[in-house]
Amino acid sequence: MNEPAYSVTAAWLVTPSETGTTIIRNPTVYWGKNGQIVQIESRDSSVYADLHQPSVVVAGNQVSTVNLGNSILAPGLVNAHTHAAMSLFRGAADDLSLMDWLQKRIWPMEGQLVDGAFVETGTRLAAAEMLLGGTTCCADMYFYPVDAARAFIAMGMRAQLAMPVIEFPTRYAADADRYISLALESRDALKSEPLLSFGFGPHAPYTIHDDTFKRIAALAAELAIPIHTHLQETAQEVDDALKKDGLRPTARMEQLGVLGPDFVGAHGVHLNAADIARLAKNAANIVHCPSSNLKLASGIAPISALHNAGVNVAIGTDGAASNNRLDMFEEMRLAALLAKVQSSDAAAFPAERAFHAATINGAKALGLGDVTGSIEIGKQADLIAISVDDVNLQPMFDPISHIVYTASRADVSHVWVNGQPRVTHRVLADDARRYLEDSRAAISEFAAKVAALR
Amino acid sequence: MNEPAYSVTAAWLVTPSETGTTIIRNPTVYWGKNGQIVQIESRDSSVYADLHQPSVVVAGNQVSTVNLGNSILAPGLVNAHTHAAMSLFRGAADDLSLMDWLQKRIWPMEGQLVDGAFVETGTRLAAAEMLLGGTTCCADMYFYPVDAARAFIAMGMRAQLAMPVIEFPTRYAADADRYISLALESRDALKSEPLLSFGFGPHAPYTIHDDTFKRIAALAAELAIPIHTHLQETAQEVDDALKKDGLRPTARMEQLGVLGPDFVGAHGVHLNAADIARLAKNAANIVHCPSSNLKLASGIAPISALHNAGVNVAIGTDGAASNNRLDMFEEMRLAALLAKVQSSDAAAFPAERAFHAATINGAKALGLGDVTGSIEIGKQADLIAISVDDVNLQPMFDPISHIVYTASRADVSHVWVNGQPRVTHRVLADDARRYLEDSRAAISEFAAKVAALR
Repeated sequence: MNEPAYSVTAAWLVTPSETGTTIIRNPTVYWGKNGQIVQIESRDSSVYADLHQPSVVVAGNQVSTVNLGNSILAPGLVNAHTHAAMSLFRGAADDLSLMDWLQKRIWPMEGQLVDGAFVETGTRLAAAEMLLGGTTCCADMYFYPVDAARAFIAMGMRAQLAMPVIEFPTRYAADADRYISLALESRDALKSEPLLSFGFGPHAPYTIHDDTFKRIAALAAELAIPIHTHLQETAQEVDDALKKDGLRPTARMEQLGVLGPDFVGAHGVHLNAADIARLAKNAANIVHCPSSNLKLASGIAPISALHNAGVNVAIGTDGAASNNRLDMFEEMRLAALLAKVQSSDAAAFPAERAFHAATINGAKALGLGDVTGSIEIGKQADLIAISVDDVNLQPMFDPISHIVYTASRADVSHVWVNGQPRVTHRVLADDARRYLEDSRAAISEFAAKVAALR
Repeated sequence: MNEPAYSVTAAWLVTPSETGTTIIRNPTVYWGKNGQIVQIESRDSSVYADLHQPSVVVAGNQVSTVNLGNSILAPGLVNAHTHAAMSLFRGAADDLSLMDWLQKRIWPMEGQLVDGAFVETGTRLAAAEMLLGGTTCCADMYFYPVDAARAFIAMGMRAQLAMPVIEFPTRYAADADRYISLALESRDALKSEPLLSFGFGPHAPYTIHDDTFKRIAALAAELAIPIHTHLQETAQEVDDALKKDGLRPTARMEQLGVLGPDFVGAHGVHLNAADIARLAKNAANIVHCPSSNLKLASGIAPISALHNAGVNVAIGTDGAASNNRLDMFEEMRLAALLAKVQSSDAAAFPAERAFHAATINGAKALGLGDVTGSIEIGKQADLIAISVDDVNLQPMFDPISHIVYTASRADVSHVWVNGQPRVTHRVLADDARRYLEDSRAAISEFAAKVAALR
């Protein structure tokens, strides 16, 4: 049996659960040396949770305990779509549309600068920012995933590597075959890492040929891993696809056998009713990236309609080159706010729904629904504490409302990933801090190179 | 002559100026005992600013100096539309449309709870939140402005009291005549306060009669103070006005002689081309409140079109009952992001424009353009420091981009209002902290009453 080795006590616990959202007053969460949650209890028996399984006996004096005081304990946020290493391009190309941004600024800079060292350096920075802001898991789609993986492992952050495939040559790979073989090699080398999981990251329908998609679909099915791609981010992309293929990209994905429960479509801004029905029928997932979609003037994704159709809607930050933050609190709040205007309904996508999108829905989209995304017995302890003592958070009537509309990442005081403390009293764990400090010079050097090119 | 008594040195200074935006490396700003800025200089002569007037000689050893290190010095943000005391309703009514929110939740709770003590307590909380987040000046439209004023003065925050007028009775006043006479009395009692200024705050075209507007216009002209009102916040409001008056509210305001350089229209979500032309012709001001407009599903104000037509666009948080933050960094970022989607142009409302909207445009809208909103000789020292050392802000290529897209209020380390330090190393000044601490019990009591009613 997995003995409890650690515990944390707070004023509130808020988590998605089988029945909706469970709120527990004065909770204590226990987990074992392997990071697995073994018990959840409350001092206030009137709201005693159905999450509790009394079969586990806690040996109090062997448990290392943290008492958080007036804080909300919540699951770590899941950033279901990012390009972590692009934090080195943060603010390097603002106020441009997607295609100008990609073709005139990002792709040329990437061609000049992106190699393994760039990716490891940028990913360290990104992981530090995400952990400090309460994000415990991300799906990272970028070149040199083995170098990114090294950074995630050392920072102690959970990550899914959406291993890149694109039809044009980069320093990383020459053609689609080579991208795919590198993806398979990367997974083979890293598959025993407890914090890592894997997916294929074909860039987008407009940059990937049919036969490449088919090959990826076959491999993904064999390995039971997600296919993560940019989908219908701009109106132009849909128009171009209609001209070129006579099909909307979502329909083409379905025809190619790509659409299914392991499909993760990032953005999904320009989805019509037929697209939404097709995504729902195939149990596919959409990752909403609101800041990036606004900043590139792409539009506002119809997440309320997607949710109502039964599509699993997760949330991502996209990369820091188009956001310019990796801040899931910001995206969660924006998701709730924009859905109301997008659907002309102030009741659309209420706080609870945005909270689920930023936690359990992200975990499910990445195939990690049994591992993270909620605080439940049997899952790993990916936890955050939100301090609600500050002026900005007074008064509080509803902790779910506060998590979504009022709190920001600056209110996150503690973070655990896989049961390990990564942030304590708003400071990164010593090992992560030292590791980041080792990158100071490299960050400055890469930044100087970016500055020279922009 | 006004001798320099205080100075602050930083890595960057960014301010709106006559010629656009001035950026100074390694700046030092000096101000006198009365809070007036007397000198701005730079150690880096290559970007020596035109703001510098070398006639002032600095007697170094008499100047109290703060060195901020790797920080951006910027003008304090101007929150041009809020209802400060409503911070006690923060999160008390989420996910509702404007009319449901007002009629079913806010107005009944206000009727039960709002008195002078409520307003002073809520305003202390709001002022603390705003100061800590880098807002040095706000326009506050709420009942019991004398009680609000007491809180602003004690917290050391600049405020314009947009003194309320509405045609229905509240505990505060019985009818429009009484609201107006209370407004005049309040101004008479407080007009010598250096941090305060005054305006009329008739609630909205749909709650104020023609003759009341005319009377307010005459009084406002006589006193040379702004008329601040909610304007075309929802589509319904415009439809109703067309049915009732045969006129759009902006046209009616013009007919009544209300529209002019002293007119401050909050929201302005549903403005058509004729409204925009009318506002421009009359040199009127619009205060954009993006979070609130999204949360109540009101819509997205056409601020890029307003700006292009020559209308002065400022930014406000609205009250914490519909936001749920008083966070001008959040609103500034949202303004820039939403304008791009609203106008389908990623270049619309770039970072620089949003920065101006949150600073100098707000000051101009409130008739305080000679006092605050930029860092210039002769203005009062309303300053903030944004620390750019943290992981979240690495790397930095453009300080204006970072202020708008990347920084958040949590990055504000120091705040001065009228030359007085209000926040130092992220902590409120002692007097303000003690004053807020005195309200702890009152905040809890009012929160318990709100909780019982919601």
